[in-house]
Amino acid sequence: MIIPISDPADRRLDDYVRLRDVNLRKHLEAERGLFIAEGEKVIRRAVTAGYPPRSFLLAERWLDSLSDVLVDHDDVPVYLVTEQLAEEITGFHVHRGALASLYRQLRHGVEDLLGYDRLVILEDIVDHANVGAILRNAAGLGWRGALLSPRSADPLYRRSIKVSMGSVFSLPWARFDDWGRAIPLLNDHGFCTVALALTDEAVDLDQVRTMLTDRPGQKVAVMLGTEGAGLSRSWIERAEVVAKVPMQEGVDSLNVAAASAIACYVLR
Amino acid sequence: MIIPISDPADRRLDDYVRLRDVNLRKHLEAERGLFIAEGEKVIRRAVTAGYPPRSFLLAERWLDSLSDVLVDHDDVPVYLVTEQLAEEITGFHVHRGALASLYRQLRHGVEDLLGYDRLVILEDIVDHANVGAILRNAAGLGWRGALLSPRSADPLYRRSIKVSMGSVFSLPWARFDDWGRAIPLLNDHGFCTVALALTDEAVDLDQVRTMLTDRPGQKVAVMLGTEGAGLSRSWIERAEVVAKVPMQEGVDSLNVAAASAIACYVLR
Repeated sequence: MIIPISDPADRRLDDYVRLRDVNLRKHLEAERGLFIAEGEKVIRRAVTAGYPPRSFLLAERWLDSLSDVLVDHDDVPVYLVTEQLAEEITGFHVHRGALASLYRQLRHGVEDLLGYDRLVILEDIVDHANVGAILRNAAGLGWRGALLSPRSADPLYRRSIKVSMGSVFSLPWARFDDWGRAIPLLNDHGFCTVALALTDEAVDLDQVRTMLTDRPGQKVAVMLGTEGAGLSRSWIERAEVVAKVPMQEGVDSLNVAAASAIACYVLR
Repeated sequence: MIIPISDPADRRLDDYVRLRDVNLRKHLEAERGLFIAEGEKVIRRAVTAGYPPRSFLLAERWLDSLSDVLVDHDDVPVYLVTEQLAEEITGFHVHRGALASLYRQLRHGVEDLLGYDRLVILEDIVDHANVGAILRNAAGLGWRGALLSPRSADPLYRRSIKVSMGSVFSLPWARFDDWGRAIPLLNDHGFCTVALALTDEAVDLDQVRTMLTDRPGQKVAVMLGTEGAGLSRSWIERAEVVAKVPMQEGVDSLNVAAASAIACYVLR
């Protein structure tokens, strides 16, 4: 259902307004229960993962490459606009020329993920790019799911999705309502909780790997802390193991996404 | 030398115009031989690393925290502006409220780095954030330097610097003029060249580590390819080893910065 639109004030484009305005978007997307996917590949992955599209916003040259997706959803409006109009509405140049608005769905609860053997736990990772990168790393390295603290950034925010290359659609994730329950719950379900932190008591990550080779079938939850302050004290104290990536003198630390890549690789 | 400025057209602010306009900035910075550092911590690191400041652009509340730096360079103009004026000039909200313009210096030639035992080699990494992240990972994990292909993005571009957290000032790096010379030169200087690529013939990174434990003192150069196409065929063919991070089925690949973190960790 292709609908050419030339008026930037057309209310049918309301899902797509001011995509760079994080605060506006947070409210708008939560209220309407939608999220935005950007670029042909990511749109395709969202739809394939079963998220129902609300509408598409495309410049004409993208009609062809997405034609199979559009045919499969021929009841969903396809708003055809010029790239200039797309820029006017969204507030930035849409490099990949294609946007979709899809219905949000909570796919998993925390309990659904506790049977898996490898989980990453995100404490207050507030940067969307970091959330996306961590989920991409976890998915790529064969980890099974991600659990987020209440304050961590939204995996279905446009930037998280983009950085994750759509891994947020395939990797199961859920958010804790009550962060205080997290460690007891992980313990009860047999996880070895590994806090990643640059503290004096932390052991090298390689030692944790050695320890785990003596425990075949051991479930592992790696806990990653906020970009600024690191993992909270209470998590560090209550984790079974505190581990670190040994750092070169004079360098503060790795970015949390880089640390997640190393931890997911070493403990996979 | 504190100089309050209230006119956005004041030519003394020309170093700082339209910081988001990548094309404009590339030319402007090359022509004038400058680069921009953003945020108190990064400015401090640039100055400490010995790059001479041309000027500072600060909102008033940053005068205090940078006062020692400003005193040490009291012949350098400090342009005092409102945050609104800073935004008007630079084209975005300067979150960290402090900017500095510094003189570019080519610190190293390719030859200077060939004595080191751990180098990362960047082939056509065109994304500034990826260049910054790779250099930060290399520095943090104790690698000694980075060599860049002619087309790789500029480590002294504002975004590279920011993502690297200033590691571009401390980690020696240099750029090849003649990319064809790179592999022969690395071979001549005794490097084991490890191409990171997801090809069929690639061995797991852990196997490369095992191989290297049998060669004490072996110098290693890890070669990372462009975000889209990966390393060029000729590099893959001419490397001593082609290695990969084993990927979960259905996930294309890791981001090149994440791959660099894992490779620098495993082969450190």
